[in-house]
Amino acid sequence: MSELAAKAGALDAADELAGVRKRFVLDTVSDHAADAAGVYLDGNSLGALPANVPERVEDVVRRQWGELRIRSWDESGWWTAPERIGDRIAPLVGAAPGQIVVGDSTSVNVFKALVAAVRMVGDDRDEILVDATTFPTDGYIAESAARMTGRTLRPVTPGEVPGALGDRTAAVLLNHVDYRTGRLYDLPSLTAAVHAAGAIAVWDLCHSAGALPVGLDEHGVDLAVGCTYKYLNGGPGSPAYLYVRSDLQDRFDSPLPGWNSHAEPFGMRSDFEPASGALRGRVGTPDILSMLALEAALEVWDGVSIEAVRAKSLALTDFFLECVAAYVGEGRVESVTPAVHAERGSQVALRCEDAGDVMKALIERGVVGDFRHPDVLRFGFTPLYVGFADVERAARVLAEVLR
Amino acid sequence: MSELAAKAGALDAADELAGVRKRFVLDTVSDHAADAAGVYLDGNSLGALPANVPERVEDVVRRQWGELRIRSWDESGWWTAPERIGDRIAPLVGAAPGQIVVGDSTSVNVFKALVAAVRMVGDDRDEILVDATTFPTDGYIAESAARMTGRTLRPVTPGEVPGALGDRTAAVLLNHVDYRTGRLYDLPSLTAAVHAAGAIAVWDLCHSAGALPVGLDEHGVDLAVGCTYKYLNGGPGSPAYLYVRSDLQDRFDSPLPGWNSHAEPFGMRSDFEPASGALRGRVGTPDILSMLALEAALEVWDGVSIEAVRAKSLALTDFFLECVAAYVGEGRVESVTPAVHAERGSQVALRCEDAGDVMKALIERGVVGDFRHPDVLRFGFTPLYVGFADVERAARVLAEVLR
Repeated sequence: MSELAAKAGALDAADELAGVRKRFVLDTVSDHAADAAGVYLDGNSLGALPANVPERVEDVVRRQWGELRIRSWDESGWWTAPERIGDRIAPLVGAAPGQIVVGDSTSVNVFKALVAAVRMVGDDRDEILVDATTFPTDGYIAESAARMTGRTLRPVTPGEVPGALGDRTAAVLLNHVDYRTGRLYDLPSLTAAVHAAGAIAVWDLCHSAGALPVGLDEHGVDLAVGCTYKYLNGGPGSPAYLYVRSDLQDRFDSPLPGWNSHAEPFGMRSDFEPASGALRGRVGTPDILSMLALEAALEVWDGVSIEAVRAKSLALTDFFLECVAAYVGEGRVESVTPAVHAERGSQVALRCEDAGDVMKALIERGVVGDFRHPDVLRFGFTPLYVGFADVERAARVLAEVLR
Repeated sequence: MSELAAKAGALDAADELAGVRKRFVLDTVSDHAADAAGVYLDGNSLGALPANVPERVEDVVRRQWGELRIRSWDESGWWTAPERIGDRIAPLVGAAPGQIVVGDSTSVNVFKALVAAVRMVGDDRDEILVDATTFPTDGYIAESAARMTGRTLRPVTPGEVPGALGDRTAAVLLNHVDYRTGRLYDLPSLTAAVHAAGAIAVWDLCHSAGALPVGLDEHGVDLAVGCTYKYLNGGPGSPAYLYVRSDLQDRFDSPLPGWNSHAEPFGMRSDFEPASGALRGRVGTPDILSMLALEAALEVWDGVSIEAVRAKSLALTDFFLECVAAYVGEGRVESVTPAVHAERGSQVALRCEDAGDVMKALIERGVVGDFRHPDVLRFGFTPLYVGFADVERAARVLAEVLR
């Protein structure tokens, strides 16, 4: 056994989260890697299946829908699922209850948040700042929000934000972790800078929630959105969420005031009166199957602290970088993920000339990451189910493929 | 056996759609009506569970998500599900392929459609007409669309639309069937009137699709939206759909241009270039569990014509009105659903003073309809699984409750 394999064994033996892996369906034999269980390093794109989800979904389909039918809106708690599940996500992102609703896609929630943000400030604030390196959908939606509210959209890198802020700034849309490089941005200081300029801070937590502490309440974030199918393991396309800080809820003026956000949704009134609280972020009828699968998936967090997850995440990415340095020849790949812990999310992105082909070969050998145009190998480390032996094996297979 | 019970038996024996009922999970014993299988007349709110759905959902969860994971976006056809399932809905609403995408809620699709409609006409057209009797969410969203595009919203009854149309009209949002009264509106003539005024016709098909022929292409409808959890039986909160007539697709300028509507979604480009075709109606990552449950549910339509469904629907509602007239004393209830076939959807709404309490008592006896504020008993008739004996029994139980 190599030195690093031995080290992996020791790290796994000391891992306080090692037991959580059993809460997931892993180690299935895939047809692409029939000889061995795979190493799944793509939980930052689609989280693995929690073991309790299939049975829960079956109950939702067969009993709640199939037998109780319409009565389930009350009796099975369907109607209140968006806010109930929001409260379940809340502690993972440092939010007190009553500030998060689940529903719609991340894109739709970015639209709600940005338009509502602009409406919270004066008309003289005519500029929206957006992370120029963002996952593209945020930029596209921000452009639409700017167009529809008569504002100008100004793309800047997160580092340029403090210098770009001013009296004209209405809102700033930032990513907590960059989807491509895995770089973690300083949410507390950037939020403080946005506030100092009198603007509204909107954070996209897609690549941080469930992987590291966010501290929404602690740092006074105004609005936040995130998906639930990455580190929250909610399943493919599971609904996103929207955080509206409690003292801003009365001023949250949604561009999508559907009947689910009405103060009296079954009053069937033609005039719109917004509900109190986070419910204002709801829109139409929630997609119950996807939503209740997510609710079940969140049970894997029982007894797990986000601080422990963060500690293991950093240990995993440190160890991966160590193994890659040891196994892969100098210069063949280059990490674009910051080495400094304070600037690292829960992924490692390696620049590699023929990244597309390399990722295909890795997947054929059971090591699943993903490729991001044009030249990035992206590996996500979900501390709930990735172990150190997985990490060592992934680096070893990567070195084999690159040789 | 009463005369009407005998008639029900004869009608059921002659029903060419009678065999379709087997494709659904019905006749389960509910705890509220433990002595007898129920009569489900609420398929216009939540369609019953198709029998093939549970197994399909289990496969999606256990194999597609649990084993293939991220690879399912390609290998299990997840990525193309919105347009594939749209094409499956298309024949039911009289649309050629390539014009419908599935995703988001009805409310969100109303927003997309109305904003895009306004953008298709000149700025001098400064008014949006909306059905004043609409299910409220359409009105709330139309108000937002008007506000965000600088137009005025003018609520009018469908009958007033022809008189209200003019050079100022940008778009008209109408319901094919009224959610409360079950009244069917004349889509061909109203669409023609909207077009004669140079405006865009947006139809909400929530209460007609799957219950009667719509003829979107034939009648030149511009844009349409609808939910899939009523007569299409997609499950609670299953995703809605958006129809964009093919010759308008190049002009469809979405207010929600998420990455799924980009010409090159994985190019990760910061500039937005819309996809061709109906794909422009997509937004963010589709909710796969809900969406693939819907896809399975649509298989119940194999070999079923919408014309046969319409014929049975009218026969069911005629027979219900006949049974109610025979069993319930004069004046106790009053139908607010038009007697004329050309003006009737697939539901019967009875005005009744104590409708809320009456519906509770009906549900306790296994006859499930719903109550609509302030005084309406609403009974929906899904021809795929409601039979004439069900209808006779429902009217009989209603008479018992009202005595």
